[in-house]
Amino acid sequence: MDDIIVDFIEKPELENAVLIEGLPGVGNVGKLAVEHLIDEIDAEKFAEIHSLHFPPQVLVDEDGLSKLVNNRMYYKKGVGLDDIDLVFLTGDYQGMTPQGQYQLTDRILSISKELGVETVFSLGGYSHGDIVDKPEVLGAATTSEKIEEMKQLGVKFSEEHPSSGIIGASGLLLGLGDKLYDMTGICLMGETSGYFVDPGAARAVLKKLMKYLGEEISYEKLDEKAEEVEELTSKVKDMGGMQQQEAGGEDLSYIG
Amino acid sequence: MDDIIVDFIEKPELENAVLIEGLPGVGNVGKLAVEHLIDEIDAEKFAEIHSLHFPPQVLVDEDGLSKLVNNRMYYKKGVGLDDIDLVFLTGDYQGMTPQGQYQLTDRILSISKELGVETVFSLGGYSHGDIVDKPEVLGAATTSEKIEEMKQLGVKFSEEHPSSGIIGASGLLLGLGDKLYDMTGICLMGETSGYFVDPGAARAVLKKLMKYLGEEISYEKLDEKAEEVEELTSKVKDMGGMQQQEAGGEDLSYIG
Amino acid sequence: MDDIIVDFIEKPELENAVLIEGLPGVGNVGKLAVEHLIDEIDAEKFAEIHSLHFPPQVLVDEDGLSKLVNNRMYYKKGVGLDDIDLVFLTGDYQGMTPQGQYQLTDRILSISKELGVETVFSLGGYSHGDIVDKPEVLGAATTSEKIEEMKQLGVKFSEEHPSSGIIGASGLLLGLGDKLYDMTGICLMGETSGYFVDPGAARAVLKKLMKYLGEEISYEKLDEKAEEVEELTSKVKDMGGMQQQEAGGEDLSYIG
Amino acid sequence: MDDIIVDFIEKPELENAVLIEGLPGVGNVGKLAVEHLIDEIDAEKFAEIHSLHFPPQVLVDEDGLSKLVNNRMYYKKGVGLDDIDLVFLTGDYQGMTPQGQYQLTDRILSISKELGVETVFSLGGYSHGDIVDKPEVLGAATTSEKIEEMKQLGVKFSEEHPSSGIIGASGLLLGLGDKLYDMTGICLMGETSGYFVDPGAARAVLKKLMKYLGEEISYEKLDEKAEEVEELTSKVKDMGGMQQQEAGGEDLSYIG
Repeated sequence: MDDIIVDFIEKPELENAVLIEGLPGVGNVGKLAVEHLIDEIDAEKFAEIHSLHFPPQVLVDEDGLSKLVNNRMYYKKGVGLDDIDLVFLTGDYQGMTPQGQYQLTDRILSISKELGVETVFSLGGYSHGDIVDKPEVLGAATTSEKIEEMKQLGVKFSEEHPSSGIIGASGLLLGLGDKLYDMTGICLMGETSGYFVDPGAARAVLKKLMKYLGEEISYEKLDEKAEEVEELTSKVKDMGGMQQQEAGGEDLSYIG
Repeated sequence: MDDIIVDFIEKPELENAVLIEGLPGVGNVGKLAVEHLIDEIDAEKFAEIHSLHFPPQVLVDEDGLSKLVNNRMYYKKGVGLDDIDLVFLTGDYQGMTPQGQYQLTDRILSISKELGVETVFSLGGYSHGDIVDKPEVLGAATTSEKIEEMKQLGVKFSEEHPSSGIIGASGLLLGLGDKLYDMTGICLMGETSGYFVDPGAARAVLKKLMKYLGEEISYEKLDEKAEEVEELTSKVKDMGGMQQQEAGGEDLSYIG
Repeated sequence: MDDIIVDFIEKPELENAVLIEGLPGVGNVGKLAVEHLIDEIDAEKFAEIHSLHFPPQVLVDEDGLSKLVNNRMYYKKGVGLDDIDLVFLTGDYQGMTPQGQYQLTDRILSISKELGVETVFSLGGYSHGDIVDKPEVLGAATTSEKIEEMKQLGVKFSEEHPSSGIIGASGLLLGLGDKLYDMTGICLMGETSGYFVDPGAARAVLKKLMKYLGEEISYEKLDEKAEEVEELTSKVKDMGGMQQQEAGGEDLSYIG
Repeated sequence: MDDIIVDFIEKPELENAVLIEGLPGVGNVGKLAVEHLIDEIDAEKFAEIHSLHFPPQVLVDEDGLSKLVNNRMYYKKGVGLDDIDLVFLTGDYQGMTPQGQYQLTDRILSISKELGVETVFSLGGYSHGDIVDKPEVLGAATTSEKIEEMKQLGVKFSEEHPSSGIIGASGLLLGLGDKLYDMTGICLMGETSGYFVDPGAARAVLKKLMKYLGEEISYEKLDEKAEEVEELTSKVKDMGGMQQQEAGGEDLSYIG
């Protein structure tokens, strides 16, 4: 079999499109955000990606139906004030090896380029090791112009983390997109404890993104999920709080 | 050398055949079941598969004869009320890496397709972390029709494990068979403690499969093995029982 | 670069030759034995093998000269009563991954076949976890004829280890040699504690091999090394002996 | 994507050039030394190397700009008394797997050969496990002539470490350069504790190299960095000194 197999359901025709990635990662922030957005704006699935870079695994749903783990791409035309065409990437797993990460990201970017994508947003979590009440959104980008634009929306840029990096798909989409596909990239990372899935951080990230796109959506379902998690975390707090994670808080904290 | 080397002893001509897989895994349930079935219905070996995805190892038998580790395929024509042609897959190891798992499973399916296989049963164990007296058989399948059919035979489908998956060859045979080879797949998993090889769970799985095939076999040899293991486990029980495994019991418990 | 690079110094013309392998492994038994034999019968180096399956490393000798890690092949014509042509394989490392092991062994066998090799001896250690006074030599082979022949020389065949295997180059040379190159293979393993390099076990293995070849050599240098190690081990014994290794003694003990 | 992507900014024309490598490693000695030298003699960047053998990661600078991790090559013509052309290799990471190390080093050497490189200096650290006041510089080389030449400059060659090796890019550049590209190689390793980045060891290594090149540079910036680190280490010393690392100090200590 080929290392990566892409099944197209359709090939949408888009213009000057924006790719928005949310794959599993710290606090599952990116995946929660993108899946919520796909639901809210009713985006259409157009491709499934299977690969031997994913785990050899099927997922089983509540009825007992099995499904090979995959990544999925969706699109929605004409979103927001400027009628922006959007492409979405989410899925069950990221590539399991560095080489798998590079090969998968390169393929995603190649597909996106062909569809007309010129800008990439990668969404993820930024782990604190401490529970966060009002999560801020930290950013990184491939151009100074985008950094300025994002600052206007209240995204923080990390003077305090000069040597930090972004590991995984969120990082590579920026790096390879810039290097090989002439795309502008922005990474938005929601502050999160890193202990739980974090719908609150996903909401914070989405709010910045929607402001950028000039589109409004409901956050009700994310809020409900956030409340469930909050009940959990408040119990933990009552039990004496959470200790700071040792190390890791500095250099590896940007894991997308 | 090629990554995968298939030596055909013969190429059986089959019709609408069923592939039944039992490779090493949790409690060795699948391997025990398939090897017992091969013996009982006197199936014929038709292919040996060697691969650099297996460990670099020879096994040595009690006479001192060495044999390169492999997977093996067998067949038996006209089994059960409906004269079903069966193909079997068993072996010494599963592929050692995710990529090896994908490549080997793809090759097995490709061989099976050529032989006329249209349905795949993968057999495995479902680990509890606790000793099981009367093992149930849990299922997963690629179609709702097969799920209904299996429910009629008393196979349980896992409402309580919505996000679980099946890892390894048992999962991939369903996933890739469905995706790339247009095959229907069913996975049958016998409940097992996960601490010992479990001929009792293998028997439970086989019973469901034989009911489906409409064929009767003797379970004597499995029962003898089960008794030996039971002596062992009862000693452990006397020593104060076994503690539940931490974690793992939820999400990774379907390991085939 | 190619995955495996073979530099031939010369291409010896041999007939019905015997390949004798001794790469690093348990107690370094195989490597000690083959290097001693190469020295004693003054064999000629004819090939160096470099590969990205070896560690990315140079060794530095006592003068400060660096040398890329490699495997090396030697030959000696007309050894013993029957004028047997011998080929030797030794080196700094075995392949670092299963795939590397398969690819390297396959290449060695392909080179050997071309040179006229028909029989392979792989030499290694068999770990006990306990200090051994008079090491026995255990064997495995690809044919019953060779097993009988070896039994005549006092090599033990392991009724007590029915499910054991031989891992690494020593195992693969038998397995792939038999499967792909129509070669007869014999593995000789010297009993060893597994705690130290073991020239005594190497000597025991060599004695059986030389008896087979009908050739006599001096063991003086091995005996000197053995004495040095013995001083060390007797100190350990005085300190209260060595505890049996847990597990491992059964199934993984044949590691070549 | 290709496994290794080389972007040339320009292709300098050099003669009888010397490649000087300093990638991350023990005490970051090599990287500190080469980056300092690049700054001091104002070398020009001419190539960037991206690869799936590096981690899937972007680095983020203090402004929030992201950059795909890479290796970088620089050059400077006519350095020192003999107008030597220099090529430099530094970067964010070494290859992450043995195979990646081999492939990347081979590509670097192939590029260097084409540019006219005939000699390779690899710079690194030599870990003691103890804090070093006056770091010595240890060497290894591919020819006796270079060893003699280096001894004249006060480089130590390691009679006390006969079986040691140099692991990683620093080792492979010598090994593959010698084997495949007919280049002479010298490795210079600064003594270092291995606990901290060590600008002092980098300075010691650079001093030997500059003596060889017949060029003088300022070490002010390295001295400043060294002082900062020294403040740190003296605090540690006050707290009771540092225990010797167990093992490791012997055979793995040459890690470049």
